[in-house]
Amino acid sequence: MAKTFAPSPLALPLPPLAALAGLRLGAVEANIRYKGRTDLMLMEFAPGTTVAGVFTRNKCPGAPIDWCRARLPGGTARGLLVNSGNANVFTGRAGVETVETSAAAAARALGCAPSEIFLASTGVIGEKLPADRIVAALPALTSALRMDGWEAAARAIMTTDTFPKAARREARIGDVTVLIQGIAKGSGMIAPDMATMLAYVATDAALPAPVLQALLEGGVRGSFNAITVDSDTSTSDTLMLFATGKAGNAPVGDAHDPALADFAAALGEVLTELAIMVVRDGEGASKMMTITVRGAVSDGSAHRVAMAIGNSPLVKTAVAGEDANWGRIVMAVGKAGEPADRDRLSVAIGGTVIAAKGTVVEGYDETPVIAHMKGQDIVIEVDLGLGDGRATIWSCDLTHGYIDINGSYRS
Amino acid sequence: MAKTFAPSPLALPLPPLAALAGLRLGAVEANIRYKGRTDLMLMEFAPGTTVAGVFTRNKCPGAPIDWCRARLPGGTARGLLVNSGNANVFTGRAGVETVETSAAAAARALGCAPSEIFLASTGVIGEKLPADRIVAALPALTSALRMDGWEAAARAIMTTDTFPKAARREARIGDVTVLIQGIAKGSGMIAPDMATMLAYVATDAALPAPVLQALLEGGVRGSFNAITVDSDTSTSDTLMLFATGKAGNAPVGDAHDPALADFAAALGEVLTELAIMVVRDGEGASKMMTITVRGAVSDGSAHRVAMAIGNSPLVKTAVAGEDANWGRIVMAVGKAGEPADRDRLSVAIGGTVIAAKGTVVEGYDETPVIAHMKGQDIVIEVDLGLGDGRATIWSCDLTHGYIDINGSYRS
Repeated sequence: MAKTFAPSPLALPLPPLAALAGLRLGAVEANIRYKGRTDLMLMEFAPGTTVAGVFTRNKCPGAPIDWCRARLPGGTARGLLVNSGNANVFTGRAGVETVETSAAAAARALGCAPSEIFLASTGVIGEKLPADRIVAALPALTSALRMDGWEAAARAIMTTDTFPKAARREARIGDVTVLIQGIAKGSGMIAPDMATMLAYVATDAALPAPVLQALLEGGVRGSFNAITVDSDTSTSDTLMLFATGKAGNAPVGDAHDPALADFAAALGEVLTELAIMVVRDGEGASKMMTITVRGAVSDGSAHRVAMAIGNSPLVKTAVAGEDANWGRIVMAVGKAGEPADRDRLSVAIGGTVIAAKGTVVEGYDETPVIAHMKGQDIVIEVDLGLGDGRATIWSCDLTHGYIDINGSYRS
Repeated sequence: MAKTFAPSPLALPLPPLAALAGLRLGAVEANIRYKGRTDLMLMEFAPGTTVAGVFTRNKCPGAPIDWCRARLPGGTARGLLVNSGNANVFTGRAGVETVETSAAAAARALGCAPSEIFLASTGVIGEKLPADRIVAALPALTSALRMDGWEAAARAIMTTDTFPKAARREARIGDVTVLIQGIAKGSGMIAPDMATMLAYVATDAALPAPVLQALLEGGVRGSFNAITVDSDTSTSDTLMLFATGKAGNAPVGDAHDPALADFAAALGEVLTELAIMVVRDGEGASKMMTITVRGAVSDGSAHRVAMAIGNSPLVKTAVAGEDANWGRIVMAVGKAGEPADRDRLSVAIGGTVIAAKGTVVEGYDETPVIAHMKGQDIVIEVDLGLGDGRATIWSCDLTHGYIDINGSYRS
């Protein structure tokens, strides 16, 4: 059914993953859409696990998004059930019933309340998701739960992804070392307005849900909200953070407590690493762009200019063609609708300043830029010369592969 | 130098064009960038010709845009000089000097003031445009001026265009019949924020410049501002309207005078016809989309939702693949950032309602939709079910051809 595509040339190996106290996970084949591969994943959290989440701002969210949003204020989670192949989006009353039936079945399997089950679905939009296949698969799935099931979980949530995505950091809270570990999926329909398709991060730290939520919202800005593959914001974007509390750190009641500085930094690294993996698995991607805009009137303005560059089909195709066509970067800056002054702008590619003060620099030698464009990691820097605002975002090129993948996704 | 591409499968034939009293035009090979084809076009207007124009809102406009904006308040035009192959954008002081030198030379050739010369350049961004080649070509160009030079002019302004674009209408002002005739170019970097790359329309009507400007601004909203090829707004977008006054109609001092109703309607048709030609020559286009959004909270909101659909790479690739993947239309509606309610939304393709009230319609038969998707003209209709706002826009699909053209435009 599902076509498989060759691994992205930008694929990264799965890092070594650790067991995380208070968390077991696993995956099975539920035959929801794909054949011969796992497509249903369950995480089981120890009692007392706190939860935080951010979800798509798309106005047509899937039924699982509605469910999670409504359950998040409860602040605790015992289970997370995710299927791939069908997004359960625009499925009306049937979609809501599938979510309710699935949550009830998972709650029975894990011995908790349905309100402590979180769900997500990813795949085709507009087709009914059969709850019976999920319910039927739950006994095998519950038996498959293991503390070292992380790679299996990362693989089960993939759709057009070509490699599984995970990241891991350790951090200190007081004198206790805690683990932060997460998985993500995403490849197309990537322009998260708060989080990409699906990403799940867990920690064994003990943190109240409001603190966890504040930390997650702080971390998402420079990571998942700073990537784009195709400017299309998914109806299913979900990023969740679970804290099992098994590490035994001292209680912390405020996200801005200095005791959480190291944790927040490590969380930011995990989120950024996962987000970059999504870009590196962007549909058809052959090159990754790191786009930094400085000198904007604000950080938000810098972000919007950087996104205008990263989403420009003309910039993306030029990068695919290894063409140092900096004029298209100028165009993209100018179309962003943000304060910009042609005559103060400067543009650099691969560290070589090409244009400044409204024209190409005197004696510009394209040689090092051409060499840079042949690499896989393209670095674009723009200075607007107006203020102190800055932002970095990540994008990928636009190639024939994107057309191949998306011209016939459903077939 | 310039690659040539096969004509768009959506190409339209050039309509029969008429001589327009008070206007002569022609084209020559100035060897600015292209070899073996015309690349410099001149229009000569009779004394007393009034002028109106709208220009790109891109913050990094080319030097010719700055020149035209500054000259427009004068209200009269005697000449229009346009080159293809080089956009004279981000060329600093040298670009300004090229504009000044070219305008002065054209003014001498036509016996008028430089302030009555309008200019435009289209092509590569960031390379210096040699004024000497333009100045050297002016004697031959002036000799080439003819009343029937319209097709030659339409061809000389093409860049990645695969067919020349022109449109013609007649209208009545009082008891006088006037002619409205125009040409356009544009294929990529098309998401006009007021006008696409270059379009020039002339009429033999007698209309004061402020009336002409009001009519043009009224006409651009539903035409050039309602098309997109790739969401990239050009640095050179220019739409100008010239009125030679030779038709001898009675004076009209107000754009809203009922005597101008027929003229305004005919002008709107010319602008829309030219704008649609640009979409039909969209880089790599194999299908055109007509996207109508109804039931929005306002016309502006409907327009933004329609543009979100028309610019979505996932919608565009689905259309290219003849895949009636309506879920991506739902996604695009939801990401537009405009008021929308998943459960009130309906989506139709080719006149078949597919989804309504938050889910697929009971007994949906995909057969007629599949047949419609195999055609060249794809009709997408969305009803948001919220209000009376409506808008129609035109876009094209995203194919391998777009990647081919833009991965190596400069080479």
